[in-house]
Amino acid sequence: MSNSNSNSDQITLGTYLFKRLNQKPVDVKNVFGVPGDFNLALLDHIDEVEGMKWVGSVNELNAGYSADGYSRVKNGFSASGSAIGAVITTFGVGELSAVNAIAGAYSEHIGLVHIVGIPSIEAQKQELLLHHTLGNGDFTVFQKISQFISETTAALSDINTACEEIDRVIESAFVNQRPTYLAFPSNLVNSKVPKSKLDKPLNLTPPPNNKQIQEEVLDTIIDLLAKSKSPVIIVDACCNRHNATYEASKLIELSNFRFAVTPMAKGSRDIDESDPRFIGCYVGDLSYPQVKDLVESSDLVLSLGAVLSDFNTGAFSYSLDTSKVVEFHSDYTKIKSAQYPKIRMKELLGKLVESPKLKEIVEKNEKPVIKTDEFEPVQLKDDETITQAWLWTNLGGWLKEGDVIITETGTSNFGIIQTKFPKNTIGISQVLWGSIGYSVGAAAGAVIAAEEVDKSRRVILFVGDGSLQLTVQELSTMVRHKNNIYIFVINNSGFTIERLIHGLHASYNDIQSWEHTDLLKLFKAENFESLRVNNVGEIKKLFADEEFSKNTKIRLVEVMMEMLDAPENLVKQAEKSSETNDG
Amino acid sequence: MSNSNSNSDQITLGTYLFKRLNQKPVDVKNVFGVPGDFNLALLDHIDEVEGMKWVGSVNELNAGYSADGYSRVKNGFSASGSAIGAVITTFGVGELSAVNAIAGAYSEHIGLVHIVGIPSIEAQKQELLLHHTLGNGDFTVFQKISQFISETTAALSDINTACEEIDRVIESAFVNQRPTYLAFPSNLVNSKVPKSKLDKPLNLTPPPNNKQIQEEVLDTIIDLLAKSKSPVIIVDACCNRHNATYEASKLIELSNFRFAVTPMAKGSRDIDESDPRFIGCYVGDLSYPQVKDLVESSDLVLSLGAVLSDFNTGAFSYSLDTSKVVEFHSDYTKIKSAQYPKIRMKELLGKLVESPKLKEIVEKNEKPVIKTDEFEPVQLKDDETITQAWLWTNLGGWLKEGDVIITETGTSNFGIIQTKFPKNTIGISQVLWGSIGYSVGAAAGAVIAAEEVDKSRRVILFVGDGSLQLTVQELSTMVRHKNNIYIFVINNSGFTIERLIHGLHASYNDIQSWEHTDLLKLFKAENFESLRVNNVGEIKKLFADEEFSKNTKIRLVEVMMEMLDAPENLVKQAEKSSETNDG
Repeated sequence: MSNSNSNSDQITLGTYLFKRLNQKPVDVKNVFGVPGDFNLALLDHIDEVEGMKWVGSVNELNAGYSADGYSRVKNGFSASGSAIGAVITTFGVGELSAVNAIAGAYSEHIGLVHIVGIPSIEAQKQELLLHHTLGNGDFTVFQKISQFISETTAALSDINTACEEIDRVIESAFVNQRPTYLAFPSNLVNSKVPKSKLDKPLNLTPPPNNKQIQEEVLDTIIDLLAKSKSPVIIVDACCNRHNATYEASKLIELSNFRFAVTPMAKGSRDIDESDPRFIGCYVGDLSYPQVKDLVESSDLVLSLGAVLSDFNTGAFSYSLDTSKVVEFHSDYTKIKSAQYPKIRMKELLGKLVESPKLKEIVEKNEKPVIKTDEFEPVQLKDDETITQAWLWTNLGGWLKEGDVIITETGTSNFGIIQTKFPKNTIGISQVLWGSIGYSVGAAAGAVIAAEEVDKSRRVILFVGDGSLQLTVQELSTMVRHKNNIYIFVINNSGFTIERLIHGLHASYNDIQSWEHTDLLKLFKAENFESLRVNNVGEIKKLFADEEFSKNTKIRLVEVMMEMLDAPENLVKQAEKSSETNDG
Repeated sequence: MSNSNSNSDQITLGTYLFKRLNQKPVDVKNVFGVPGDFNLALLDHIDEVEGMKWVGSVNELNAGYSADGYSRVKNGFSASGSAIGAVITTFGVGELSAVNAIAGAYSEHIGLVHIVGIPSIEAQKQELLLHHTLGNGDFTVFQKISQFISETTAALSDINTACEEIDRVIESAFVNQRPTYLAFPSNLVNSKVPKSKLDKPLNLTPPPNNKQIQEEVLDTIIDLLAKSKSPVIIVDACCNRHNATYEASKLIELSNFRFAVTPMAKGSRDIDESDPRFIGCYVGDLSYPQVKDLVESSDLVLSLGAVLSDFNTGAFSYSLDTSKVVEFHSDYTKIKSAQYPKIRMKELLGKLVESPKLKEIVEKNEKPVIKTDEFEPVQLKDDETITQAWLWTNLGGWLKEGDVIITETGTSNFGIIQTKFPKNTIGISQVLWGSIGYSVGAAAGAVIAAEEVDKSRRVILFVGDGSLQLTVQELSTMVRHKNNIYIFVINNSGFTIERLIHGLHASYNDIQSWEHTDLLKLFKAENFESLRVNNVGEIKKLFADEEFSKNTKIRLVEVMMEMLDAPENLVKQAEKSSETNDG
């Protein structure tokens, strides 16, 4: 037995933080961020945890996006169904640069911990006019700003409670799938805490539903199902984010109900678009007519984890009568107009699929086979310019099982809805928050997560030339870590999505043209390929090339397109957005 | 006479905003920012104002930095001595990306207006779950965040008060030299307001000092001056920011007092380093011994616009006894321990230089000629590696009157203290806020401002290879606008300033190496030069080249240096920072 007073029973608080983040099922193995004077000492402790690495992002906004992308991909792989990311910045200047990324994670329900290295307790007490302050001696401003965009925040100040505070922000990020904030003073990094604190498992389980209320809810749902002739399931973003896709897929399997996804749920774990019961992507009025009809003619919609934002609903054009909808959410349930707070989706769906009554009901259900024309590949001649319609409907033929596909806000994340995803595809796009440039940072996180778990999984990014410019330097991070990612740059001469909303030919929607195929060389990539495809024949040839299809290097493909060509659903959405803006 | 009911007597609120920003002396002619769906309609109105242009920055953080740099340079040129910048972003995603830049402007007393295009009043009322929201129907969160880092904020909601609200945020930014925030709903852009409102001049004058109190303060100062044997003036940042440098230079001229500057005040308007009364740069213990001695042995220090941050004071090592200091501030005066609220520097200094008693006193003052060795050029052989000490002490020989010099936080803004500035030099660095990457965005704003006023003025940026990576894409904006700027990239293999604070050889202070000399080609510059200098001989040759010294194209010079070479004052500062961090 070791002596309880020996040094080996003590670890530094810095080490404690990284050990906790690394413990399964939290399982953070790569930490994103930018070094800064107030976090340097903390960074020393990452290497002490076996298998944990510092990524070293190029800037803090990108680091935040990367932690978000990392969290999404780990979530897609994770056996426990949940995961988080971690990002480290420095006080003031660093953390504020990441605010937009953190707000995006908050908006889209992404679990991550934002760790900020802050001045020592002593410097704070003296209200020293340190650099990186607003010059007013107030050291709490930045935490206050983060409170608006975090599930919870903590600023460590007492070594006796520090471990519990660290546990709390990690647990909250994991359970609530939202960002949390941890301010870590530089002088506490090497303070000692008992190693034994690591032995107490983190509490990563959401609170259980109230049994009696859940019974009532279950009975009501079963009754509705029993009466329903044409039930339909809509899988939405929070079903994936809050770890209920396994239960959702079981429900589909057992019930034989038809199901659709929303744009935000495309590429959710366990949800298989090649399933014969799959209807397509439901986006209200912007849906394919057949999808719209099948969903809206249903007499009972089970909505799983809905996020009813404009871009996720075809500008609020969902035409679903409340009286025929059951909404399952991460923290409540709604049946018609009745709300049941704290009856959580995952447990409730689990009970539903276990219910013997469900089996009885579904016996009477027909076994529908949907033949959808949504994904029908557009045909063009080889010498024709590549169109958005061609790309997105033909892309499915090149995709493989297990691919991770990231699409930028703009033509890409609207277009990808037309692409049929193979099994086990992970789809990433930021439909609600919609910050342009997000996809490049997220891709760095996604590919690092994918390579961590399974190097055979391909990671594929689609980004427009306009959006790429905002965050381009994160390609350097992928080069640095020799990540074998595909980067498709859609060169359509500026901000096409903005042009469609307002200012079709306005110069403010123009950008400086870049030599995209020089990018990887500039960042000194060693094992890389840079290509430009000008017409359908060239991209077809590429997709047919077996060597190209293997993720053995970092590849950038510039896809030349017409400036005003856009996916049909984007054109319609833009018209609606323009109307809303004019008020 | 025109009919007062005719359409020509009405203008849109969008036009009103830009006309107001453009009216002299506010005089904004270039507006920075990024287009986004909620600000597009507003951008249409920029072109309606003759001589006003949309710059189109590459991302919002950089746009904020640019507006800051623009404000500083215009401030340096302005006849009225004050100026502001303007930056436009879109709701949520856009504005939050700019938060760090706005906080920096707040911290460093830079006047700018941050204009945010937000959803229509109707959409806000309905709490629509629009994209770019946190998904909780709260449209006020982002304004609340901005309140922490703005002098004042306004969210337009009523056309009847909108003009006054616009006036208020512009006036406040101009008078207080701080950022202000204006949320502009998309549906109000084309609402009409009376054109005549433009005829009422903006109120851009700070409130007058209380006469009686000012008299008392003046008498006390004059008494102190009469008794003083060796008075010294320290010009600090807020003297320049709050438009009191003319009065400061008059005071120096009339009094013959010796004067020093601080790091933040280096390159202030009207302050001439070639003046024989100039002592050098005072940074507490980090000052050259002669400077430290002259300042600290003085029996009366007139401190003009002090910002006593760590990096501005040699880690708080100012050794000035309160009993011998008079502090002039933008909004109060302090004599020894006595505070006089609202006795403002500019008016008080004006009264002081007009005072006949001052003349009497200064007759007895000797005429000191300071021979400083601070700027003595270091000598190295041609085949030797360029050192920090060589660069900064020899740079002065290449600089010209009127140059605008921007230095990044790191070796550059510490090193530049050793450079003797010619007359009328404008110096820009972010000593207090210290956000790495700032200088690249600021340079885009600075060169656009300089070219607006006087194309012959050279704009010269010094940035390290680490910092450049954070904001590199703003070089594209300078290429796009054909700005003839000099970009010196100090390639010292990563974050040298961080290495000196902590982690000398730690991998987290490394970066991916880039081909810097390919950058301008990547951004498709047409009239450009890219060079690398490897030793002293090569950079000497460059500095001697007349053609190179003319600002006729955009030029990037990569300066190869040793990884751990740093200016002496930075080495000392880093030691002190490290101690403070360990608490």
